[in-house]
Amino acid sequence: MRILIVGTGGTIASARTERGYKAKLSVDEILGLAGIEKSDGVKIDTEDILNLDSTLIQPEDWSVIAREVYNALPDYDGIVITHGTDTLAYTASALSFMVRNVDKPVLLTGSMLPVTEPGSDAPRNIRTAIRFALEGVPGVYIAFMDKIILGVRASKVHSLGLNAFQSINYPDIAYVKGNEVIYRYRPQAKAPAEPLIDTSLDPDVVHIRLTPGLGPEVLLAVSERVHGIVLEGYGAGGIPYCGRNPLKAVVKIAREKPVVMATQAVYGGVDLTRYEVGRRALEAGVIPAGDMTKEATLIKLMWALGHTDDVDKIRSIMLRNYAGEISATSGHLQERNEGDSQENKNQHREEGKPQT
Amino acid sequence: MRILIVGTGGTIASARTERGYKAKLSVDEILGLAGIEKSDGVKIDTEDILNLDSTLIQPEDWSVIAREVYNALPDYDGIVITHGTDTLAYTASALSFMVRNVDKPVLLTGSMLPVTEPGSDAPRNIRTAIRFALEGVPGVYIAFMDKIILGVRASKVHSLGLNAFQSINYPDIAYVKGNEVIYRYRPQAKAPAEPLIDTSLDPDVVHIRLTPGLGPEVLLAVSERVHGIVLEGYGAGGIPYCGRNPLKAVVKIAREKPVVMATQAVYGGVDLTRYEVGRRALEAGVIPAGDMTKEATLIKLMWALGHTDDVDKIRSIMLRNYAGEISATSGHLQERNEGDSQENKNQHREEGKPQT
Repeated sequence: MRILIVGTGGTIASARTERGYKAKLSVDEILGLAGIEKSDGVKIDTEDILNLDSTLIQPEDWSVIAREVYNALPDYDGIVITHGTDTLAYTASALSFMVRNVDKPVLLTGSMLPVTEPGSDAPRNIRTAIRFALEGVPGVYIAFMDKIILGVRASKVHSLGLNAFQSINYPDIAYVKGNEVIYRYRPQAKAPAEPLIDTSLDPDVVHIRLTPGLGPEVLLAVSERVHGIVLEGYGAGGIPYCGRNPLKAVVKIAREKPVVMATQAVYGGVDLTRYEVGRRALEAGVIPAGDMTKEATLIKLMWALGHTDDVDKIRSIMLRNYAGEISATSGHLQERNEGDSQENKNQHREEGKPQT
Repeated sequence: MRILIVGTGGTIASARTERGYKAKLSVDEILGLAGIEKSDGVKIDTEDILNLDSTLIQPEDWSVIAREVYNALPDYDGIVITHGTDTLAYTASALSFMVRNVDKPVLLTGSMLPVTEPGSDAPRNIRTAIRFALEGVPGVYIAFMDKIILGVRASKVHSLGLNAFQSINYPDIAYVKGNEVIYRYRPQAKAPAEPLIDTSLDPDVVHIRLTPGLGPEVLLAVSERVHGIVLEGYGAGGIPYCGRNPLKAVVKIAREKPVVMATQAVYGGVDLTRYEVGRRALEAGVIPAGDMTKEATLIKLMWALGHTDDVDKIRSIMLRNYAGEISATSGHLQERNEGDSQENKNQHREEGKPQT
């Protein structure tokens, strides 16, 4: 068995400096400090491609990582990527869209405490990742605190605690206990086609939280600077149509650019058919994010915009499942909604104001 | 014992319409459907002041609710407010800042299923609220699924499940089981001073999520339209200072207007001293939100801006604990950081660029 471990920086690669922790260690140094033998029954190759605090990761870095993974797939049984935790879930989503039909296990991992600190979770997380990399189950995953999470379903939910990642609206894939792997939700054993790489992304999107009092001016000002907006609504989703009336702006923006509605709630996702405030948003042309994570929603919007600027095509892309990121139920629901929405939007366009 | 129940609308007051659920029932109708007798050992008065899906709630509505509560405090042993769940946590935070030294229990509650639907959680939640309203423990709370949560610490974490609210970075106050109240974290038994009302809020703030690729242009465009920004960073907090370099914009904006850093992580809060990316944000003049909820952070910023536009005064307000919204530890940490930040900011102003 042959594993590649790719270093990109992050807390796991950090050491204390006068200005706080800073990424500086190579993968070989991390493995050395973690007490992981490079020939421990498994042949381990290492490569350092970035050395960044993951707050600094930019969309261009995802292409670098994606190319590295794509090129290494034929030569290895599994790939482990060490990465900072702050944007780990974003990178996992980006990899899931950029490298499709991954035919080997690709594990992203990191740690909340630097490998240089006593009690660091780095050795445990790297061992978990390596163990699952040997399972032969294709896909992009996050390995953290003995858990294997589908990458495109992961969010960082804790800024301090070691159990920092959760699988959102989706079961954990597996738990790793020592050498044992206990599956909770076993992915397909074979990739559906040959791996392909497609790194076209348009990073010019913004994610705004809907808050009481948000007015149309802010949304219009933002929309002039970006190609797409993720609007993080409340609960099941919806946009105010009175008071400061942000819906007025969304109606205008959604004709030209995709406006995707996610939810502030951690769990449960968006259902725009449930309440009147949601239906009006659908009628305005808003695209529901279903049960996708906030990270997957943003990346998928960038990825869709990397391929087309046609709002209706982007809507279809957003609602379709590519990498396990959106549930079929949620997708179906929204395909139906989409029909509604299109009909009503056309009607609305004729009328020139939101329907009541 | 005398309780006032104030109706503001929401799912709890909703019935099915052709366009989804819509708020339309009065408190008397809700109590009737929930099977709660108005003279069940307790004298219950009712009043309907709003009838809104809480997605539609605007900052002006918080003043209406705050005045109602303030005026009713002398005449009642406790006050229960029925409210939609979508912005329940925002209203709870707004009330906590607008009505200070509340000397009676003030309970906000709602339901995930309309009281008109079979299996609705409305009766259970109203009973929980009324039961805790009789406890005489002063403060603003959310009563939901047998839990009593400090209002200013609550977030809606589930868009569908009945157990929709959680106390963030703070223990639950109590659990209500039938007639029994089990305390987990008992608040002070007496308000520190006479109740006072202060509804000055500046609603012109925006909450933006930091995402990989966010550039300075978007932040600058937004900043021209608002008086303050909540920037939701990753993990412990921090702003990229390379790539598209949003820090460049924050440095400019933070001289004129407050930029508060919250975190995308659900739990754990912000610590800008931990990593270099955080320290640079502090040096740019960013105000850390500590362990406050996103809802409390936004409302507190509106409330601070309602009283001053001096960024240093706003910083002091944001870091000080008024209603249990920010932990003393987190406060202290930040008072220290604040010192650092001020020093460094002045230095930085002389230099005209972020320190390295």
